[in-house]
This record gives sequence, structure tokens and C-alpha cells, in this order.
Amino acid sequence: MTRDMISAETSVRVRYADTDQMGVAYHSNYLVWFEVGRTELMRDLGLPYTEMEARGISLPVIEAWCHYVRAAKYDDCLTIISAMNEMPRARVKLSYRVLKEDSILLAEGYTVHGFLSESGKPVRPPKYFLDKLKESFR
Amino acid sequence: MTRDMISAETSVRVRYADTDQMGVAYHSNYLVWFEVGRTELMRDLGLPYTEMEARGISLPVIEAWCHYVRAAKYDDCLTIISAMNEMPRARVKLSYRVLKEDSILLAEGYTVHGFLSESGKPVRPPKYFLDKLKESFR
Amino acid sequence: MTRDMISAETSVRVRYADTDQMGVAYHSNYLVWFEVGRTELMRDLGLPYTEMEARGISLPVIEAWCHYVRAAKYDDCLTIISAMNEMPRARVKLSYRVLKEDSILLAEGYTVHGFLSESGKPVRPPKYFLDKLKESFR
Amino acid sequence: MTRDMISAETSVRVRYADTDQMGVAYHSNYLVWFEVGRTELMRDLGLPYTEMEARGISLPVIEAWCHYVRAAKYDDCLTIISAMNEMPRARVKLSYRVLKEDSILLAEGYTVHGFLSESGKPVRPPKYFLDKLKESFR
Repeated sequence: MTRDMISAETSVRVRYADTDQMGVAYHSNYLVWFEVGRTELMRDLGLPYTEMEARGISLPVIEAWCHYVRAAKYDDCLTIISAMNEMPRARVKLSYRVLKEDSILLAEGYTVHGFLSESGKPVRPPKYFLDKLKESFR
Repeated sequence: MTRDMISAETSVRVRYADTDQMGVAYHSNYLVWFEVGRTELMRDLGLPYTEMEARGISLPVIEAWCHYVRAAKYDDCLTIISAMNEMPRARVKLSYRVLKEDSILLAEGYTVHGFLSESGKPVRPPKYFLDKLKESFR
Repeated sequence: MTRDMISAETSVRVRYADTDQMGVAYHSNYLVWFEVGRTELMRDLGLPYTEMEARGISLPVIEAWCHYVRAAKYDDCLTIISAMNEMPRARVKLSYRVLKEDSILLAEGYTVHGFLSESGKPVRPPKYFLDKLKESFR
Repeated sequence: MTRDMISAETSVRVRYADTDQMGVAYHSNYLVWFEVGRTELMRDLGLPYTEMEARGISLPVIEAWCHYVRAAKYDDCLTIISAMNEMPRARVKLSYRVLKEDSILLAEGYTVHGFLSESGKPVRPPKYFLDKLKESFR
């Protein structure tokens, strides 16, 4: 059997600190929620981001995009669905959906990440990372 | 004479609060810096955003994109160049470049905004807004 | 039986966005975590803050203090213990402890809040608020 | 002549991102503004914080306190007055006032900082730091 994508779900609650004077969550917070989703996706894969950093690899964001469909409000409980749709080559692309009550789409977006060594040089994805993904995409 | 775009420059200094443990500014801050640039662009146009809200119009972000080229570091003094390249129709699109030392490109991006009435309904851009822009695009 | 304080526990995970280039959570985030704890304390009491705002009462922070004992790190799972130690008079004081692994104290602090009406005037704590607290302190 | 305190003034403009749904700046932002003030105070002293970190010393916040007097609003231009009132011993204490229109007090507070070596051990304030301060307090 083949899985054609890897995904993970996590939830966040909108904090008062996240709101702005329009009475909704300020738009840059969605990028932070994407990060929360990404962290859980990697943990689910058995590749916690803390471990990657401990092994000397960081995954800086090279590109980020978000489409805001409906506003998130204070105290809303949101579901973040994070997915990797294809095996990474030099870069890895992740996509996200932010839902309310498990079905109302608030936002969707993606991030693209490079791989950096400890000295800050772009490197290829490490073998242990690709191996884990191959298991998961199997 | 015709101007084919409206632009404004402003500067921000990277705060310690903006950094993350990679030692660079966390990526969601660029959306906040875009907002700082947008606020100054509107003030330059004679359309301060505070006035628009006072007149009952808000400009929520519908879409945001950012391409990260080089990292911003703590205490860097950044230049944000914000531009409107065409007259808005139902929506307004703004583009941004974030530079260091006036010439090194750190990031570029755009935001797309809708117009909302006080009751939260999408509305057409108000006439005073379009009139001001027509003057500027002259 | 008399309870001499009301308390609630909640947990937050340290996000990458929360870290700074010292490699630890930036200090202002603790005030946000206190807010998360406070929100859950009020929900536990049967007084969700959303409901108070819906009834026209807000609880702005008048004073905040935090003592930082040990650093929180990326991906740490923290426990926030929020407590109200006495019946509020004109103001309400809440205290907080932030723990790691349920026993290591990272920080402790407090916030003091006033009560504001929708028009922004200081008011006395509403009766339904005091009644709920009386039940809980019983 | 003797100066009995060292102080510096800087200004920040309240961003939309700083506001919350009460329509005012969220309270944790004041700690960030204190940081902005502190950074400028140290630059004025000839001790930029970037240089201290380059020399292996960091100044983590051990304690922070803020009293909120009046609300800061979106687009307000604030003055941050940061001061050091006494020569540091093992720790350094800084105090802050946040003003609007140079005279209306919005908030006042303080932070207390320790000195850490690169390995994260508490150390005494470095000699070059104390020497600079002695010049300034002279």
C-alpha cells in the first residue's frame, strides 16, 4: 500500500494576545500556528525538530504563503492540519489548513524550507530524514 | 506626468524579541514589518489607516506571501519599501521589499486586502480612498 | 468546608516563535502564558472571559510582575498553575507559577486587573462574578 | 560633577499587531518596548548589547514589573525613557517610563538582569561594563 501524503493534526486555542483591534486573530499568528502544526508533524514522523537541531540541521523558512478565508476569534479552538505531499529534494514543502469546529476552513497556506548545516551552509536533506520519510510515504 | 506606482520607505530595527534560537529574526515578523510599511504608505498618501477605521472601513489581510532571501539579525536596521502597483478594484494588493543597508535584499512579499464595513460586510473601496489614489497615480 | 484559594492548571508547549537568540523563551511570553492560565481558571469557575466581555465587562491588566527562575526551552511542555487567593474587591489579583515536568519552577508572577464597562469606565466587579467566586471559595 | 543616574529616550510607534480586541496595546508588548529602550540606553553608553554578546556575556531578565496607567492605542507614538539609577553589583536594575506626547504617563516598570557567561553560568559584571558605567555616573 502506498501513502501519497503524510499529515498530522494538532489544535491551538486563540489567545487574547493573538487578537487585534479588529476583534480577530492578527494574520501573522497563522504562520506561528503553521509552525505548531509542523512541529507535531515531525514529532509524529519520529523526527522531532529538536533532534534535527541537536544533530546540527536547521530548517529555515524560505517561503511562506497564507490565504485567509474566515477570521479566527478569541478562545476559538482551531485544528491545524499539516501535510507533506511529496518527498523533499533540496527543499521541503509543507501545506496547512486551519479549521474551526473540524470543518470550517479559516485559512490555508504553505511553507518551503531549506536545510542548513550548523555553519549556516545549505545542505542536502540528511539521510536519516529521507529514510524516515520513505517509511512513511511507503 | 504619470506615476506607475506609489511607494514609501520606512525603517525598523530588529528587536531581541524578534529573534529565535536560530539567531535570526523569526519569519512571521516580516508580516508585521510589512504592516509597518503599509501604515506609512497610507499615511504618506494622506489616508492614515486610523482615519479609515474611524470612517468605518477596515482592510483585513486576505492573502500574504513572503520569500525569505537572507536572514535579518538582532539590532539590524532594516528598510521596508512598500508599494502599490495598480489601482485597487475590489481588493488592494501591496508589495514589499525588506532591505539591509539600503541595498541587500532580505525578503520580498505581498499582501492582498479586502474592504470591510463596520458590520463586517465586504464593500467596494470608498470613493475618498480611490480619489486619493487617483491623485497619487497621476 | 472552606477553600482558601481557587486554582487551575493548564499546559502550553514552547514554540519556536517564543525563543530568542539566547536559545530560551523570550521573557514577555510568560505574560502571555499567564493569560492562557487565567483564561482556563475563569472557564473552570464557570465564568469564561468571552462571556464577561459579551456582558460588557473587560478585565484589563493594571499591574504585572514576573520572577524568572529557570529558562524554558523550545518544545518544553510547561504547566501553568493560576490561582486567586482572595475575593476581589475593586481589583482582582491572580498569581501564577510556571513549572516544567510538574515540579521544576521556571517562573512565578502575578497580575492585577481592574473591571471596565463597555464605555471604558472603571466599575465594581459584577454581582454574577462575585457570586460565582463565593461558591468557589466556599 | 556627578550624575546620579543614566538615562536614554527612544520612541516606538504602536503597531496594529500590538493591539488586542480591547482596542489597546496588549500588555506584554510593554516588556518588548522596555527592551527597545534598554538597547538604546546601552548603545548610548557605548556598550551595545550586540558587543556584549560578541564578548560572551548575556543579560537575561530575572525579574520584570510593569504598572499600566493609561492604554496605548494603535499608531500612538510613544516615548520610552530608560534609566539606570545605581551602579550594578551582581545584578543590574533598569527602570522605564512609557509616555505619550512626551508627558502623559502610560506605564512605568523595571527589569532586573543577571550576567551570564557563554556556558550559561552566572558571572560578575565584566570590568569593561563597569568602567563604562563609572565614566557615565561620574
